[in-house]
Amino acid sequence: MKPRIAITLGDPAGIGPEIVVKAWASPDVHRWCRPLAVGRPEILRRAVALVNSVAEVATVPSPEEAEPTPLCIPCIEAGPRNAIDAPAGAVSAEGGEAAFTAVVAAARLALAGRVDAIVTSPLNKEALHRAGHDYPGHTELLAELCGARDFAMMLYLGPGGALVSAHGLAVVHVTLHTALRNVLSELDAAGVLAKARLADRFMARLKGGRPRIGVCALNPHGGEGGLFGDEELRIILPAVQQGRAEGLDLVGPLPADTLMVRARDGQFDAVVAMFHDQGHIALKLLGMHRAVNVTLGLPIVRTSVAHGTAFDIAWRGEAQATSMVEALRVAARLCPAASQ
Amino acid sequence: MKPRIAITLGDPAGIGPEIVVKAWASPDVHRWCRPLAVGRPEILRRAVALVNSVAEVATVPSPEEAEPTPLCIPCIEAGPRNAIDAPAGAVSAEGGEAAFTAVVAAARLALAGRVDAIVTSPLNKEALHRAGHDYPGHTELLAELCGARDFAMMLYLGPGGALVSAHGLAVVHVTLHTALRNVLSELDAAGVLAKARLADRFMARLKGGRPRIGVCALNPHGGEGGLFGDEELRIILPAVQQGRAEGLDLVGPLPADTLMVRARDGQFDAVVAMFHDQGHIALKLLGMHRAVNVTLGLPIVRTSVAHGTAFDIAWRGEAQATSMVEALRVAARLCPAASQ
Repeated sequence: MKPRIAITLGDPAGIGPEIVVKAWASPDVHRWCRPLAVGRPEILRRAVALVNSVAEVATVPSPEEAEPTPLCIPCIEAGPRNAIDAPAGAVSAEGGEAAFTAVVAAARLALAGRVDAIVTSPLNKEALHRAGHDYPGHTELLAELCGARDFAMMLYLGPGGALVSAHGLAVVHVTLHTALRNVLSELDAAGVLAKARLADRFMARLKGGRPRIGVCALNPHGGEGGLFGDEELRIILPAVQQGRAEGLDLVGPLPADTLMVRARDGQFDAVVAMFHDQGHIALKLLGMHRAVNVTLGLPIVRTSVAHGTAFDIAWRGEAQATSMVEALRVAARLCPAASQ
Repeated sequence: MKPRIAITLGDPAGIGPEIVVKAWASPDVHRWCRPLAVGRPEILRRAVALVNSVAEVATVPSPEEAEPTPLCIPCIEAGPRNAIDAPAGAVSAEGGEAAFTAVVAAARLALAGRVDAIVTSPLNKEALHRAGHDYPGHTELLAELCGARDFAMMLYLGPGGALVSAHGLAVVHVTLHTALRNVLSELDAAGVLAKARLADRFMARLKGGRPRIGVCALNPHGGEGGLFGDEELRIILPAVQQGRAEGLDLVGPLPADTLMVRARDGQFDAVVAMFHDQGHIALKLLGMHRAVNVTLGLPIVRTSVAHGTAFDIAWRGEAQATSMVEALRVAARLCPAASQ
């Protein structure tokens, strides 16, 4: 049986509803899973009209009653009725509340085992705050809903384009949304090891075997033997050695610039980056539109698009659904049923 | 008249002699310039034999007497006779001395106006030290020979491959070979501005007009309005504003990950990176084998390959000459005579 996947519409002021409808038109999506929308049906209908889709939106009371086809989008109602009033391309409390409610509803369905995975459309942090929900983003909200402590956001790029790798490339960051100044104090061996373990578990599921993981150095040329910094010897190498002792296939620390070229060329299944730009510069160059976010460490399967609400192009019919299609593909692959 | 370019052989233990001979076989090289080798002719002959080249090496006493053709490699003798004894693929004083002597000879020819540019093959720092010459690399040695104070190493990638840009992409670094920890203390507005000016002058010569320059932020998301660091507002933005006041076409600070994607897509002629990995991760992914180093701020034109001696594959016939060919192309383009 194909996995059942709940897709949230995200902030209705953004491109979420549009990319859900566009992704629905991909025959692949229906081969991989039984999708189901979660949000306001009237907003979904507006997106159907925007992109001239032939699909119809059918409100359903429960996932079990959903019968998705390329021509029918089952939708579980979630969010306030006034979400339709959220102005396109702008921050609003209505938009934030709609996005919030849909995520909570989808997560509850997943926790109850009534859907196998959730895929989320982008929300806007400020809109979330205006609606009275103080979370930095999806990841922290989902971690709280799931009662998860050790979790991480991971970027994943499937095979294709310049990326020569049968199983794609996962990138986890030891530090992420923090000033470069703080990277030095936040970096520790436990963090490097924790991210390496999460990357290993994730890629093991996709690969069906032990993934090969490259660990970035922090400094230029990997510190050039201590000449350009000692974090490689003091922090990263001990973490790599500990990980290897646990059986992980870790290589590093390696200079990030050459490691990324080797990863592109298929020599690694995953990369542990020390800070934001190391991972993001490479992944965005390799496939900005195809990248997917995966939350690691949750009891449920959750992926999302790697882009934001894109308010600047919202409701103009210009949004690309590539990342949404990829998010659905990866979520389906990660469902326990699918990997059997 | 095509510019006359002196090419040093670099450390004879590395891939320098081989890539000089391989580049010589490119008809383009002879369309762009009148090349001339500087080093030990017997080492060059050994490289000719290695790659089964049909060219002959002709020792010449001066550049004026050189008559380069695809079948004849004029070579000005430089370096100790025992350079031929330098063991392949290993650090030696003989190799360091040979590399040093060739650079000095080539630079003197350029300073005297007897060649229009020099292109250098890689040397090994440790070999240089063993030979008693304490320079971190070519750049500092050349700066001293030329009496230059404000100089910078720049990476340049010509158009082609994934790079959609008629004039290629230049990347200058505000900080480079230093620990990430030191980036925060070394970064200042004067440095950002100085590098932007050098990038502007360089690309103006290649483009024949004002180049558009993207300036990287230091922190993720460009600091997200001060949430992830204030260097954008405190240091980088003032430098960008000052540069604009001087007439430079600067844009930024922009988050480095999206800036690099836009630069690849042809929206910028040059990028000012704040630290090593920002620039190198992008450029190596965009074209590791085609990248070229250019020394800015010297009274002579100097380019070089962007790779090292590659001792691991030296004298096996496996080295690629792509970067050497590019270094010759860029040097020829930069010669004043050529740009008229």
